[in-house]
Amino acid sequence: MEQMLREGERLDDLLVDNLRIIQDSSAFRFSIDAVLLSHFATVKPGDQVLDLGTGSGVIPLLLSTREPRLQLVGVELNPTVAERARRSVRLNNLQEKIQIITGDLRELGTLLPGYQATLVVSNPPYQPLGTGEISPRPDMAMARHEVYCQFSDVARAASRVLGGGGRFALVHRPGRLPELLTILARYHLEPKRMRLVYPRLDQAANLVLLECRKDARPGLRVLPPLVVYEGDDYSPEIMDIYGGKGDLDQ
Amino acid sequence: MEQMLREGERLDDLLVDNLRIIQDSSAFRFSIDAVLLSHFATVKPGDQVLDLGTGSGVIPLLLSTREPRLQLVGVELNPTVAERARRSVRLNNLQEKIQIITGDLRELGTLLPGYQATLVVSNPPYQPLGTGEISPRPDMAMARHEVYCQFSDVARAASRVLGGGGRFALVHRPGRLPELLTILARYHLEPKRMRLVYPRLDQAANLVLLECRKDARPGLRVLPPLVVYEGDDYSPEIMDIYGGKGDLDQ
Repeated sequence: MEQMLREGERLDDLLVDNLRIIQDSSAFRFSIDAVLLSHFATVKPGDQVLDLGTGSGVIPLLLSTREPRLQLVGVELNPTVAERARRSVRLNNLQEKIQIITGDLRELGTLLPGYQATLVVSNPPYQPLGTGEISPRPDMAMARHEVYCQFSDVARAASRVLGGGGRFALVHRPGRLPELLTILARYHLEPKRMRLVYPRLDQAANLVLLECRKDARPGLRVLPPLVVYEGDDYSPEIMDIYGGKGDLDQ
Repeated sequence: MEQMLREGERLDDLLVDNLRIIQDSSAFRFSIDAVLLSHFATVKPGDQVLDLGTGSGVIPLLLSTREPRLQLVGVELNPTVAERARRSVRLNNLQEKIQIITGDLRELGTLLPGYQATLVVSNPPYQPLGTGEISPRPDMAMARHEVYCQFSDVARAASRVLGGGGRFALVHRPGRLPELLTILARYHLEPKRMRLVYPRLDQAANLVLLECRKDARPGLRVLPPLVVYEGDDYSPEIMDIYGGKGDLDQ
């Protein structure tokens, strides 16, 4: 197995179905956000799934176990990151199911001509340019800040590859919810399911999970709150998501 | 006290500061929604407060106790309902603080020429026309369905009387959140605080409390979930709001 790893990389357990993932030891690693999104999205057998800005490929890896006959495509702009995701796919022997494409999600028409998805997912950069400190490392900056794409690019790309009734599931910061909903409306992506994630029951939400359907009638269901911690422990629901296994902060 | 009541009316205790309210025994009575909104809104000493669609006047009555030197105006289209609200104001000896105006909130410029508010509140009808069964009773239909005004009329009216930084606090159904946020953006009312109300911790939200500031910078804070019931009892927070007193379903 060791030959799959390059210098400066580490191998982590995804804690689900014995999946493992290769990550840059020093850079932005996948977080609970991707795990919660993979658990939240409505997935149906035979779905054609597209992950916009797939990074380490964590979301396609996690989704691949949820239903049979899925075909998953992850698009990633950074060639080094995309190549690492491809090695994680091979490491898990999932190359029949998951394809990682190197390219710009703003150019899907050229990257994937004629491609149609039934489910698009994304864990996009949360921070608009002009807010917060931008990392001097380009890979970190790209993952956190809207350096190479804005949320409107992600929504436009999702809308382009989805037919009527197709799903778009995303995770983002609650602070940007008004703007996100305005942009989604512009691309005919109607929010149908939302879940707020609260670190603790008495704290403000720090994540929002949102699922839209293209061209659907209005009507949003706000699901029960997802609370991450109870006292010093993860909540029972978070423990369930991780199959009762523990160290989320790996 | 009895001479304040007409036939078909009842006197209810507001459970806060010994306030009482006159309501139509057979019609739409104020609900927990108005109480939660009155508790949620940011109120500052000396605020000029406008309640759009005040109904029984419950919101101005409840808000009147929160800070000193408030001046409150409630606008109500239905003359019978407005007259009853005026009697509730006199019953509580609050006529120096609360004024009830009979009229259409779409014509504020004529109703209240030159008026400026620092806080606008509203518990508007939740149901769009064309959804759900419309009550054959006009007063019930008006309170529940967007018969006489749509949410865009309420947002436009709020925006008109608020200066920069002025607050607009409302309660509505989470199902309409995407549409509400799009309309609020159109009137430069930027959502700054939101709270979802969940009947129980494991149930979908059934109310959303939202506070906007006019012309503010984007950035929404989603406050901790407000859970109404725990087991067979009201949650400690709900009991606190009612000062530990009990029967909310009166």
